[in-house]
Amino acid sequence: MAARKRTERLIVTRIDADGAHRAPDDLIVEEPMSIELDGTLVTTTMRRPGNDYELAAGFCTTEGLLDGAPVQHVRYCANGSAAATEYNVVTVSTGGVAPVPRPRLGPTSSSCGWCGNDQLDELVGRLSPLPPSEPIGLDVLAAVPLRVLDDQSLYRRTGAVHAAAAFDADGEIVLAREDVGRHNAVDKVVGALLLDGRLPAQGLGLFVSGRASVEMVYKAWAGGFSTVVAVSAPTSLAVHAARRAGMVLAGFVRGDRLNVYAPERLARSLG
Amino acid sequence: MAARKRTERLIVTRIDADGAHRAPDDLIVEEPMSIELDGTLVTTTMRRPGNDYELAAGFCTTEGLLDGAPVQHVRYCANGSAAATEYNVVTVSTGGVAPVPRPRLGPTSSSCGWCGNDQLDELVGRLSPLPPSEPIGLDVLAAVPLRVLDDQSLYRRTGAVHAAAAFDADGEIVLAREDVGRHNAVDKVVGALLLDGRLPAQGLGLFVSGRASVEMVYKAWAGGFSTVVAVSAPTSLAVHAARRAGMVLAGFVRGDRLNVYAPERLARSLG
Repeated sequence: MAARKRTERLIVTRIDADGAHRAPDDLIVEEPMSIELDGTLVTTTMRRPGNDYELAAGFCTTEGLLDGAPVQHVRYCANGSAAATEYNVVTVSTGGVAPVPRPRLGPTSSSCGWCGNDQLDELVGRLSPLPPSEPIGLDVLAAVPLRVLDDQSLYRRTGAVHAAAAFDADGEIVLAREDVGRHNAVDKVVGALLLDGRLPAQGLGLFVSGRASVEMVYKAWAGGFSTVVAVSAPTSLAVHAARRAGMVLAGFVRGDRLNVYAPERLARSLG
Repeated sequence: MAARKRTERLIVTRIDADGAHRAPDDLIVEEPMSIELDGTLVTTTMRRPGNDYELAAGFCTTEGLLDGAPVQHVRYCANGSAAATEYNVVTVSTGGVAPVPRPRLGPTSSSCGWCGNDQLDELVGRLSPLPPSEPIGLDVLAAVPLRVLDDQSLYRRTGAVHAAAAFDADGEIVLAREDVGRHNAVDKVVGALLLDGRLPAQGLGLFVSGRASVEMVYKAWAGGFSTVVAVSAPTSLAVHAARRAGMVLAGFVRGDRLNVYAPERLARSLG
């Protein structure tokens, strides 16, 4: 397969104190990609082309669609009439072992029941608390964002991408991925580990640029990460989910400082 | 209806050069909300509770679900057994005038065709170019982010929210909304204008914190905004969509400087 174009050069007008001048600018490429599981369309996401197999496998993992079924193969769909089309539809196959995906949309009754603890049950009900693992040192966690930045080549060129990365107990970056969507970046990291036979990611930490929503925590939990480090703030629901998971959740991680939101026992032992 | 809690206070552990100490922290509340159109569930989104009618009406507008049908009423669903449940399901009613929403998931054939220009056709095919309107001055655009910041009370408290705002040709903020999701913040702005009888938003600009993805441009286009101002970078597909719309798209807008990405004629006249 030909290499996918990651950026597109366009002429833009820059305006600053020196006036207006036209100049080329490298913009991040964004294209829709559809993901199928055993022949059923499960989502279409706007993503940065590249690492598409990881994205597809990771999405099916972090959304709980595989239900433990091993992935037999991942490939581009070849049904499209144009050559480029083939690279925007990816099929994950478990040979029919995974449950048939349910459409997310349907009669409303199934979703009338989300509130407070109920909603957390609904979101994380099928996930068990993570097995205990040796906590990663807080000084290690504090240093992760700077280490990831070394891998954020697209961010430095375009300023338009989010990053996710897996790191080990020494703070070494195992792998990092960038995408226009934070969810996609996380899914690509989880998918890469899955395709490499390294899930669950017990003992590893997950770094996310930006904020930690409950969906980020949920995806990390589904991948088996014991720790999540976010550059910015978590939501309260993300904290509740991390506490239930037995996961370490750190936010506002900025080199020399960080906040620990979960678990409560860690916060208690330090405070 | 009782006022919804916008933040939740949790005890967290802050670690900095002075060591570790426990302290209360205000975290943004995030809850799922389901949106129905004429009785059919169209999406469930994680959102900051509040401005829920705006979010529901705005989502149906910016996703093109109304197809011009007037909104008769917006209300909370009262089917849930618990009181709080009622506030996480919102129904938009057009009395059946809007087309029956199609589930986004289904057989794959419908999505095998997205690539290059085709994908832009698929995304924006049903939208006509915007009518010409007097361009808003670039000095006005450059000042918008600072003006919006005055309205970002949640951001200053939690650091965890995105903002969207509508502004007029003088740079006055017509209204601003904050949410854990950028899409939601934009939908709330569009929905507020719709419920106030002010759509299409011709002559108004839309401010978005963070980046401008094609979905942001698409939502602005569907709302009739003539201008989009983003704090960070657009994607290349967002630029192509804005150029097709005849919309002014500015990025990296930081008080004293900005980049103009669209339309090409404006960029040309300035450069």
